[in-house]
Amino acid sequence: MTQRDASKKPGKEVQSTGLFHVIDPQVFQRPLLDELCDLATRVRAVAKRAEGARFLQNLLPTSRAMLYFTQPSTRTFLSFDNACHILGMSTSEIRNPATSSEVKGESFEDGIRTFSSYVDVIVMRTQEPGRAAQAAQLMDTIARPVPIINAGSGSDQHPTQALLDIYTLGRSFSDRGGIDGKIIGLMGDLKRGRTVRSLCYLMKNYSNVSLVFIAPKQFAMQSDVINHLKEHNIPFKETEKLNEVISDLDALYITRMQSEWDEVNESQAVDFTKFSVGPKELSLFKEKGIIMHPLPRGAEIDTTVDMDPRAMYWRQERNGMWMRVAVLLKIFQIEGQIQKLDL
Amino acid sequence: MTQRDASKKPGKEVQSTGLFHVIDPQVFQRPLLDELCDLATRVRAVAKRAEGARFLQNLLPTSRAMLYFTQPSTRTFLSFDNACHILGMSTSEIRNPATSSEVKGESFEDGIRTFSSYVDVIVMRTQEPGRAAQAAQLMDTIARPVPIINAGSGSDQHPTQALLDIYTLGRSFSDRGGIDGKIIGLMGDLKRGRTVRSLCYLMKNYSNVSLVFIAPKQFAMQSDVINHLKEHNIPFKETEKLNEVISDLDALYITRMQSEWDEVNESQAVDFTKFSVGPKELSLFKEKGIIMHPLPRGAEIDTTVDMDPRAMYWRQERNGMWMRVAVLLKIFQIEGQIQKLDL
Amino acid sequence: MTQRDASKKPGKEVQSTGLFHVIDPQVFQRPLLDELCDLATRVRAVAKRAEGARFLQNLLPTSRAMLYFTQPSTRTFLSFDNACHILGMSTSEIRNPATSSEVKGESFEDGIRTFSSYVDVIVMRTQEPGRAAQAAQLMDTIARPVPIINAGSGSDQHPTQALLDIYTLGRSFSDRGGIDGKIIGLMGDLKRGRTVRSLCYLMKNYSNVSLVFIAPKQFAMQSDVINHLKEHNIPFKETEKLNEVISDLDALYITRMQSEWDEVNESQAVDFTKFSVGPKELSLFKEKGIIMHPLPRGAEIDTTVDMDPRAMYWRQERNGMWMRVAVLLKIFQIEGQIQKLDL
Repeated sequence: MTQRDASKKPGKEVQSTGLFHVIDPQVFQRPLLDELCDLATRVRAVAKRAEGARFLQNLLPTSRAMLYFTQPSTRTFLSFDNACHILGMSTSEIRNPATSSEVKGESFEDGIRTFSSYVDVIVMRTQEPGRAAQAAQLMDTIARPVPIINAGSGSDQHPTQALLDIYTLGRSFSDRGGIDGKIIGLMGDLKRGRTVRSLCYLMKNYSNVSLVFIAPKQFAMQSDVINHLKEHNIPFKETEKLNEVISDLDALYITRMQSEWDEVNESQAVDFTKFSVGPKELSLFKEKGIIMHPLPRGAEIDTTVDMDPRAMYWRQERNGMWMRVAVLLKIFQIEGQIQKLDL
Repeated sequence: MTQRDASKKPGKEVQSTGLFHVIDPQVFQRPLLDELCDLATRVRAVAKRAEGARFLQNLLPTSRAMLYFTQPSTRTFLSFDNACHILGMSTSEIRNPATSSEVKGESFEDGIRTFSSYVDVIVMRTQEPGRAAQAAQLMDTIARPVPIINAGSGSDQHPTQALLDIYTLGRSFSDRGGIDGKIIGLMGDLKRGRTVRSLCYLMKNYSNVSLVFIAPKQFAMQSDVINHLKEHNIPFKETEKLNEVISDLDALYITRMQSEWDEVNESQAVDFTKFSVGPKELSLFKEKGIIMHPLPRGAEIDTTVDMDPRAMYWRQERNGMWMRVAVLLKIFQIEGQIQKLDL
Repeated sequence: MTQRDASKKPGKEVQSTGLFHVIDPQVFQRPLLDELCDLATRVRAVAKRAEGARFLQNLLPTSRAMLYFTQPSTRTFLSFDNACHILGMSTSEIRNPATSSEVKGESFEDGIRTFSSYVDVIVMRTQEPGRAAQAAQLMDTIARPVPIINAGSGSDQHPTQALLDIYTLGRSFSDRGGIDGKIIGLMGDLKRGRTVRSLCYLMKNYSNVSLVFIAPKQFAMQSDVINHLKEHNIPFKETEKLNEVISDLDALYITRMQSEWDEVNESQAVDFTKFSVGPKELSLFKEKGIIMHPLPRGAEIDTTVDMDPRAMYWRQERNGMWMRVAVLLKIFQIEGQIQKLDL
């Protein structure tokens, strides 16, 4: 995320924190997190009424987005595509690099600069890490820069996923003081799950949160996150036994085994069934607890869990669309038009 | 097709039959068929004038469709995409499963549920049979269901194709009493042609229709259809000789050899040239007869036939777009806005 | 390009030259070139203001375009897609022939006719030469023809690229009498670069232009272009040494080695580094000269050149979008609505 100079911002909302590129979830601060969550809630409410949906669609009708997704994606792609459509934006897409000029040997930078010639924002997802940051750096050197939104860049960064996770946590606990003071379990392939990693980095913005990592030793949370938590005095513990901790948790965030990042089939050496939930685990879980998952899921959540009121992952998924609308509103500096609405 | 409870329907058109999922052509009844055909004709007339086209585009500007087409398709895809655009809907598409989360092992049901999180209707075409019905069943169990439109599911079901065929027949015979009383020839690979199969199932809605099947023995109409016709007392005969029956026909519906469904190259054992039309066959055909074909065609219709006024297949193709607009109008319960227009 | 009968044109701009299909750059004449360039400049100016962008988007909201791009393309695809969106048009695309009915053996002509059933204009790019002309011929025989725009057809034709090149030259020299009288260098793979070939054919529309071809002998400009220049008394010279001519040039149009057209790796036999520009070459170039390139580039332009004010290729790229808007305005006969605006 690049902080924009507030003085460049038109209108009276000068106290508002500007947003241009959205690259790295770690730089998000509490005021902006709260503002984005409030915006997402407002957008959702506005969109429910027919005239509200038309109002939203009239906010950015002449803006154009580029969705450059060379890594497979369903959720992130569709939620951005539809977030754009909700605001009236048109979208162009490149999802198969074989249809682009990369096959003629064009450099990554020249490709990004080309996209920027035609559109007003670039949303990108790549297999290689660092590409979104590289694109943002390029933009900062040219005369007509457009904002870059990182929609997943290698295995470590996925800022809008982190935002929608925060939003889902906050919304689920809205009648119980929000995220502050909650005990959050993170389970599964913590080593390579970029969503849980990002979420940990954002926890410093909340008071008295404690974390419980439930993972096989081989896929434990990495030391950069552990050090970050220590540095910010965020309490955490690590375990391999869900049943010993589940009754303490307010939220259980589950992730799948990310075997696509395997180097030597290391995921096959682990009994991942111990890191899953079904009716038995649910019976130990708090009545007002919530189950989250970034999806897609494997066997780690039994489909019977879907019917349980504590299953929050489908709502979490849909929250992603509203949060991405909120991010676009901030980037295009039109959040004020939603904030001043009398809901 | 799922019948909607008429009491849920707003406004005064309570006698109108509601439509939610569109899965199986066999359940369509005459009143709904007539209503959809009338709607399609009205939409086409309205779209011709500039102000009418703008009126249409203002009907569903804030609705969003998902086109999930993992089986190759040109006509069905483009006609749905453009039908949506005619009504102002935005569209998102997945056509290459390699770009979606299926590559990460996501289940079919989770994929469909994900689509439903972001859009208002899912149009889907798959190689495997039964997928659209499976998706509709899933929708009927969740809190925020969206309608599923089957745009071709394996080799046996393709309801909107059946609708556009009915529409083309009815419109072509509009000055001669419609479909009732007509003799309709169906020629080609009747065994595996889902369009001709669906059409047969719909014939029970019309009076005094008789059918003539013209097909090689190996690709004759299957017994389920034959039994259905007997049950509903719809007269039919079967032949391998077009020239012996062509002069009797009011309509000749031709299909191509569907060799993509071959198990052991069985289509190569048949001389398919006997099941084609060219100038010689046209000379035996009624002056007011019509030639239909679902397209794409192979050699079974000589391109010189295209110039003949009886060639109806290109208009049939375009009718598909108008019929799909009509289906969307019904699903979104806004058909009344077209019906009350003074054309 | 097909000249339309001016008498078909509504309104009072009867002196205006009509445009329907856009196939072959060679038929463009000076009045139409000037009109399109003026339109592009007006569109760009209008689009800068929010209300202007909304005005543009309200010009063709109910028109629909088909982008049929079976040859890889980034720039041409995106610039057409976004040009359509600027005018409010919706777009449908086929970029991967594996998703279309070609896999079922449909003929090229039937495919094009199918597209024309659903949309109002077809923009197409193919690997094989002559396809766009073939499509236009088909359209001229059917009852409901739609215009065909050639967006690259094999190695020899790319009319809208030629138009954007003319536009960029004219605009760059607008304070120095335009293109007339300029010395234009064309460097690189002149044999197979369709953009430089097209540009040469258009030079007869301008007075006192002289051309300098800078290319390896194996990739020299072909005889059809050479003969055309002789016929129209357009002076030119050929060299292999950029440093001997660069100081004379007003514009240097550079192209990459088009090795994708190699038959026997012939491009590898050439030292292409002699046909590139970097700081050293720039130091010899006129202060008001311009560097153009159709992009994508290889090593023939050092990226440090991008910061030089004479580097025009990124603006040239964006000009392509405005010129394509201008072409669409002409085809849909609504250029008058832009021309009468008081800018």
